[in-house]
Amino acid sequence: MNELEYLKQLRSLPLHEGARGLEDDCAVLAIGEQTLVITHDMMAEGTHYLPDARMADVAWKLVSMNLSDLASKGARPVGVILGSSLGREDAEFLEGLRDALLAYDVPLLGGDTIAALGASTFAMTAIGEATHHPVPSRKGARPGDGVFVTGTLGAAMLGFEGKTQYVDAFNRPRARLEEGYALVPHVTAMMDISDGLMLDAWRMANASSVTFRLNPELIPVADSARFDDCIRWGDDYELLFTCPHGLDLPVGAIRIGAVEERRDAPIFLGGTPHAYAANLGYRHG
Amino acid sequence: MNELEYLKQLRSLPLHEGARGLEDDCAVLAIGEQTLVITHDMMAEGTHYLPDARMADVAWKLVSMNLSDLASKGARPVGVILGSSLGREDAEFLEGLRDALLAYDVPLLGGDTIAALGASTFAMTAIGEATHHPVPSRKGARPGDGVFVTGTLGAAMLGFEGKTQYVDAFNRPRARLEEGYALVPHVTAMMDISDGLMLDAWRMANASSVTFRLNPELIPVADSARFDDCIRWGDDYELLFTCPHGLDLPVGAIRIGAVEERRDAPIFLGGTPHAYAANLGYRHG
Repeated sequence: MNELEYLKQLRSLPLHEGARGLEDDCAVLAIGEQTLVITHDMMAEGTHYLPDARMADVAWKLVSMNLSDLASKGARPVGVILGSSLGREDAEFLEGLRDALLAYDVPLLGGDTIAALGASTFAMTAIGEATHHPVPSRKGARPGDGVFVTGTLGAAMLGFEGKTQYVDAFNRPRARLEEGYALVPHVTAMMDISDGLMLDAWRMANASSVTFRLNPELIPVADSARFDDCIRWGDDYELLFTCPHGLDLPVGAIRIGAVEERRDAPIFLGGTPHAYAANLGYRHG
Repeated sequence: MNELEYLKQLRSLPLHEGARGLEDDCAVLAIGEQTLVITHDMMAEGTHYLPDARMADVAWKLVSMNLSDLASKGARPVGVILGSSLGREDAEFLEGLRDALLAYDVPLLGGDTIAALGASTFAMTAIGEATHHPVPSRKGARPGDGVFVTGTLGAAMLGFEGKTQYVDAFNRPRARLEEGYALVPHVTAMMDISDGLMLDAWRMANASSVTFRLNPELIPVADSARFDDCIRWGDDYELLFTCPHGLDLPVGAIRIGAVEERRDAPIFLGGTPHAYAANLGYRHG
């Protein structure tokens, strides 16, 4: 079963209302007067990192990718729960984990450790507290809004390819938590760009039943000669959001396009429609 | 690194106070006036289930082992978060998951699905709400308390070995949630017996700085000819708890011994001291 089919089947199971139909990046759980935001991401050797990756970087990235989902909800991390497969370089993994927990000032809440055969798998659940209501989803983009990103795309790709100045962008990405807190009162929709701008923008536009008209000249990329790759590769963990036109934003985000009534395709890049998600970015499974 | 060493290193990381020093089965998180209980368990092919196991049973067991941890805290499940590796028999896995969610009336809150190479790994985080304060730990057993179990030990082992009448005990264990809710106001310490009575009793006595004197004639086992195996094999998910002497218990639990001041060893089985955890039960890593 591929990931899309599996996800479709998961959606037919009994779902918590906070699961948002498994159509968002996080679950949103009202507990008394507070709202928790919960996310879960896994990383597997061979799929999410190369067998020769430094395990300290893998641990850092596991924390960052989970906290990036909280950032996209404007949620403040409460703690993380770690599931580890014991394997090679466990001490290095723990050092990277320590670095990340200290850098983000996030404590470990618990977890499980197992011995596993073959490729290692790590799981993390991050729990955060909403700082603003409603907690944004992918669904709220409205015609007339602007489409924004918080930073340059393609840096992680160049780092993965070995360009020295970008190696940290790939190995040690930072979740945009501060940007998330600052933006959340203003946005109509927000998500992180983990699978590439084009694919994630397509998903947001589709979830919102609108069309994003993106202007290629406005999209900030790390290498303009590799424009198409930079907007598809992913792993940059910038925030993608929409908000009403003319707002004075509290952080330095870049306007890359506009939200329009739904047309033939969820996104247009310049004049070119992209009706289908295929080949727009990183696809699992 | 083996699991004990890894856990020791994890304890040196920045921990949330609700992590209970990573010395308990769950994290306990105060959110406003409510208290959440959170647990995480993983299952890996080859370590926790055989490559020819039915994936529907694996899914059931993943839910049961997580909810069993909530049961041991008297916590009512709110939802579960699933991390899946896509692989063989995904449809069967989903059917077993559906069976378990319906049987326990617990909804799915979210998750992540990945493609992984080699052996599959599944991760689950279960979130519950405490029904009683304080939430019990392994630490509260006091001299004078009785030591109890909620049911027969060794059934899962016999099921694993193929004894027809016990196959369900291995493949489809039930988390003792109702027993947990009923017992939690009365217990001084409680945990589930996932790794075998002897090892888990040793851990509880050790955490409580007391000695458990267990009476072999009182311990209920599925096969008295295999007594030593039944009290070591694990996977039965009965609750082990201590409570003050003479209490009228709300569920039919079996008194298997008494808590005494700490002596030479954390547990005595009849007259025999067991000072060390080695060979007492299932050890990971």
